[in-house]
Amino acid sequence: MRTLRVELGERSYPIYIGDGLLGQGLVAEHLAGDRALLVSNETVAPLYADRLGEPDGVAQSVVLPDGERYKSLATCEQVYDALIEGRFDRSATVVALGGGVVGDLAGFCAATFQRGVGYIQVPTTLLAQVDSSVGGKTGVNHPKGKNMIGAFHQPRAVVADTGVLATLPERELSAGLAEVVKYGLIRDPELFDWLEANAEPLRRREPDALAHAVAASCRNKADVVAADEREAGVRALLNLGHTFGHAIETSTGYSAWLHGEAVAAGMCMAARMSVALGWLAPEGLRRIEALLARFGLPTQPPAIPEARFRELMSVDKKSSGGQLRLVLLQGIGDAVVTGAFDPAALTRTLRESAA
Amino acid sequence: MRTLRVELGERSYPIYIGDGLLGQGLVAEHLAGDRALLVSNETVAPLYADRLGEPDGVAQSVVLPDGERYKSLATCEQVYDALIEGRFDRSATVVALGGGVVGDLAGFCAATFQRGVGYIQVPTTLLAQVDSSVGGKTGVNHPKGKNMIGAFHQPRAVVADTGVLATLPERELSAGLAEVVKYGLIRDPELFDWLEANAEPLRRREPDALAHAVAASCRNKADVVAADEREAGVRALLNLGHTFGHAIETSTGYSAWLHGEAVAAGMCMAARMSVALGWLAPEGLRRIEALLARFGLPTQPPAIPEARFRELMSVDKKSSGGQLRLVLLQGIGDAVVTGAFDPAALTRTLRESAA
Repeated sequence: MRTLRVELGERSYPIYIGDGLLGQGLVAEHLAGDRALLVSNETVAPLYADRLGEPDGVAQSVVLPDGERYKSLATCEQVYDALIEGRFDRSATVVALGGGVVGDLAGFCAATFQRGVGYIQVPTTLLAQVDSSVGGKTGVNHPKGKNMIGAFHQPRAVVADTGVLATLPERELSAGLAEVVKYGLIRDPELFDWLEANAEPLRRREPDALAHAVAASCRNKADVVAADEREAGVRALLNLGHTFGHAIETSTGYSAWLHGEAVAAGMCMAARMSVALGWLAPEGLRRIEALLARFGLPTQPPAIPEARFRELMSVDKKSSGGQLRLVLLQGIGDAVVTGAFDPAALTRTLRESAA
Repeated sequence: MRTLRVELGERSYPIYIGDGLLGQGLVAEHLAGDRALLVSNETVAPLYADRLGEPDGVAQSVVLPDGERYKSLATCEQVYDALIEGRFDRSATVVALGGGVVGDLAGFCAATFQRGVGYIQVPTTLLAQVDSSVGGKTGVNHPKGKNMIGAFHQPRAVVADTGVLATLPERELSAGLAEVVKYGLIRDPELFDWLEANAEPLRRREPDALAHAVAASCRNKADVVAADEREAGVRALLNLGHTFGHAIETSTGYSAWLHGEAVAAGMCMAARMSVALGWLAPEGLRRIEALLARFGLPTQPPAIPEARFRELMSVDKKSSGGQLRLVLLQGIGDAVVTGAFDPAALTRTLRESAA
């Protein structure tokens, strides 16, 4: 088992990473005697919920429907109901067992029940293990926008069992790997090299390779978040590929493309724009596209007219005060957040994509 | 104009108190160029919303139905809708114009829209001016419990215009005064003396008297909150009369009694129990009852059977880990939070009340 510590002063917490961690009592260790409510979904609960019973002291649970469309205030009501009907008080701890939807929603309920109770994450998708484990972002969607309603709320601990990834659908594994590639691209050239050398073991879900990928991703994200907990500055680097990616997701109705797939295509667009600006060598773009393709990820967005793409990008919440800021590459492992770029490079990138 | 500063490190903010502050541009001063959404209700908006227009830079507004039963997640949706339809982003500021319901709900929306945007309070009831101005508590009710869903979110500024209290119904003025008496009882004997000497000017709503009462209350609450922002310790003193009071409110369905009226009767019960314990002199109880009566406030709860009263008290969220803790008096201006009391004193107090 690897243990990382996310350093956030009095809100610091550990991330445990390894094969077969569920049922070893790691959750119970962080309950500190509090009563726990397990929040999971109908896909994950039948597979893994019982492993958190006796050994981890989780006696009550609420099982939600599965899917992004249930990441809503209405579904939160089910969690609040379970907390109140179970007579949980301020010493409650919410344990989230599932992917990003369950984690974000359960975390938001923990952030807001009685103005904040304990929260432990047990992420069961690669994406959730490498992304939601660090950062404290919780929230739900509004009918008119993703993650519009939320709060920052740090977990007490994260238990990332790479063994549960064995049941993850192939596409979801790939979508998680897109975010791992992202950490390599924004600040960790050695991770990128390692991914090129270990793409096959990862696709075969070898426990050691998965644990390395999760640990390296969490370490990178933790370093960024520790420097910028409330997303005022460098944390925006984590959005590489996301402004383009959100436009793809919105355009395709959040159903055809998985988030990680949209981010993969979005990172390729950011890389192409960086090449057009003369900031990134063409060889860098080639390596990025090749690695993502080996992971079974798309490197091109769907055909979206330029004007529509611009419109979808400008409503992305990362735009601030009207100016579009993008995360662009100056090399593999070297990203910048900037609004100071030649607009012709963006135009060229969008037109190529629409073709 | 009096200005108090609530010291909370980087979350410090000013409270402006005085007659005729609306429309002087104090809100605009704290917008710092952000776009503002005014949140008010159908009672207050027609009276005062226009004063926050031009001079204060508030161009858009959402008007909610009036009443505690609208303090719900469903009403929050109206505010989220207005924010999203108005294309507000992370640089939005929510301005709450109204009493406690509007302030708590708008504050919760500000705490959770895009994981937290700016918030300015313009409280229009005495209760909101002396209570919600300080503490950062925001939230809404759940069908099964008051304030079950919420967040801590500090405002950027509070503008407490004592002039708007001119239109406040008599009962609501009295209910606000109950909380002012509370500050005297828990830690400020001079304020209690001053209230005894100035009860009539306050009931006549003389601006100077109101400003003194608001400023003294906010100063007391700010001192307590600064010492205990997250309600781990001394902040519980602010709940004097509230555990008894919540039981009264729940028993009467949150409609017959105003919160401040229930707190007034609850404080008398706490004082009676303190006398029964030998902690408070009978003369102290007499002064408390006399002052509250002069403010037109009840000093006795409605008839509630002892067993029912106990049941209602034990589900109050201030109970922690099963043990009932109460705020009791050792003198006027000297309160303690304790679970270490002779249970016979509580029994006697509850039986007297049920009679």
